[in-house]
Amino acid sequence: MIDELSALRSIEERFHKISKDVELGIGDDAAAVRFDSGKLVLSTTDTQVEDVHFVKSFITPAQLARKAVAVSVSDIGAMGGVPRFILASVGFSKGEDEGYLDGLISGFLSSLEEFKVELIGGNLSSSNKLFLDITVLGEVEPDLMVRRAGAKPGDLLYVSGTLGDSALGLKILQDEEPKQGAELLTNRHINPLPRLALGRELALEQLATSMIDVSDGLLLDLERITVQQDIGAKLELEKVPRSKEYNDFVEQYYEDIYKPAISGGEDYELLFTADESRKGEIQAISEKLEIQITEIGSITELASLDVNSVSGEYKTINERGFVHFNN
Amino acid sequence: MIDELSALRSIEERFHKISKDVELGIGDDAAAVRFDSGKLVLSTTDTQVEDVHFVKSFITPAQLARKAVAVSVSDIGAMGGVPRFILASVGFSKGEDEGYLDGLISGFLSSLEEFKVELIGGNLSSSNKLFLDITVLGEVEPDLMVRRAGAKPGDLLYVSGTLGDSALGLKILQDEEPKQGAELLTNRHINPLPRLALGRELALEQLATSMIDVSDGLLLDLERITVQQDIGAKLELEKVPRSKEYNDFVEQYYEDIYKPAISGGEDYELLFTADESRKGEIQAISEKLEIQITEIGSITELASLDVNSVSGEYKTINERGFVHFNN
Repeated sequence: MIDELSALRSIEERFHKISKDVELGIGDDAAAVRFDSGKLVLSTTDTQVEDVHFVKSFITPAQLARKAVAVSVSDIGAMGGVPRFILASVGFSKGEDEGYLDGLISGFLSSLEEFKVELIGGNLSSSNKLFLDITVLGEVEPDLMVRRAGAKPGDLLYVSGTLGDSALGLKILQDEEPKQGAELLTNRHINPLPRLALGRELALEQLATSMIDVSDGLLLDLERITVQQDIGAKLELEKVPRSKEYNDFVEQYYEDIYKPAISGGEDYELLFTADESRKGEIQAISEKLEIQITEIGSITELASLDVNSVSGEYKTINERGFVHFNN
Repeated sequence: MIDELSALRSIEERFHKISKDVELGIGDDAAAVRFDSGKLVLSTTDTQVEDVHFVKSFITPAQLARKAVAVSVSDIGAMGGVPRFILASVGFSKGEDEGYLDGLISGFLSSLEEFKVELIGGNLSSSNKLFLDITVLGEVEPDLMVRRAGAKPGDLLYVSGTLGDSALGLKILQDEEPKQGAELLTNRHINPLPRLALGRELALEQLATSMIDVSDGLLLDLERITVQQDIGAKLELEKVPRSKEYNDFVEQYYEDIYKPAISGGEDYELLFTADESRKGEIQAISEKLEIQITEIGSITELASLDVNSVSGEYKTINERGFVHFNN
């Protein structure tokens, strides 16, 4: 059980305002910050609830705090923006002690450094189960902001990194039998890497016509970038990038070896669309940032998701989350 | 149990972006909004957790949503700022159904109108107990912002409205025996009124040297506006404003009839300090806004809280929450 007053004291001692843009940080009724005039302020919030989003035995408090920040700043990256400030609301249950709080604080501190953001406020409360609710404020030039809507038929579809690792990593964590050589997978679940530099670069070069971070699985997030405009997409199943470790382990957990790659969540890779003419520039960014970027399909006029497979099997996804097999 | 997809659909249907300052509202990775250049962006977050901050049987879902917004915008008012945008994170337990969600949405909608704010984003998740975490973004001119720190010895201490009603209202709600004539008290607990207009007016006239909203009880919040500068305050116990209904009911629940007025939380009145020379202007604002403002003491050089009582009793509060009786 954590005492609010001593918790606040620890927090105020360990977080100091750094930049001149923080006029007033932790400790007043509200924080007061400056944004560049002419830029839009981006805001997003994301929650991690014990036994819903995480299980305490699989993740250290420091990892949990970092992950909560990582997945929230990821949303700012997916707009082509730059995260600047965070507010952290934490609900403590009776299960956390001072040591746990200390771990959370360490995780927050390291995430601030890693993602170049500042903690400017938050809230502590009691709760039945531990939860962390993170709000991120960021900024972006109005002309450069990349929305979910914006793709046009003919645009090519790209994704960064590899998909399905996090979902598979979670299966391995839940497996009572320890697995050798699966560290990349479990690590991608516990320490997800938001693609901030890539999102920003794609925005600065005005390359992406639409963009989203893959948080709930490729198919669902693909639908999110097409549904608003009543367009669709054709996905080349075998092109969906999978890691070596994914291929090593997937058969132990899934009958359909593509399932976690197309439906597994929490990879936080960027899914984006771009005009065909800009293929070369995307290749150049991939090389410059040393991030794998894979073309996995294209945008279609027809408002459905077609999963095209070399083996001759087709799946058409007619509505969110519903997969219809054509043969 | 609420289904996330249909919940999101209801929400997107019922909340529409209104002002030109919302470039991108609900439905993308992040919201994008414009603030006046030259102003500071204020941000604050506040959480309401079931069975910690509220009991579902005492408050309707619409009242709960409104209260969550009210107590959060109150923090912006206490800085002298203007609330503009909110993000709402809701954790649903198995105990809420579609009707409950509908009630929450209605409460959010009416609060947006009442407090002239726009809902630009949020997050839905599952949770063991229902919770609402509200982030408010507001703005204030750098010169006009009123901090908690800023009072100087000799400043007079003021509070708006009456204190203790909310704490007493909660006792009456918890009492199994129904009470006639206590509606003002229970209503102040369920439907707290943030003093936005007053906070703004005090800032615009640069009258308040420090300000805070009384959320955790007068004594604790008084300490918050003095502790940073190592100054203290003298409080005139009998001057603390109490409502007629408070006086009617307090003896049934408290041996010390001042206790809820000086230690009860959730009144959301404004506690502020001002130079003695500005007494007349404060009186004028009180008349103009038709809000009772009471002088209840003064700021002292000595870093302690002295509670001065006409009856000859003195209490000196040496540290947070600790009351030492002098005689």
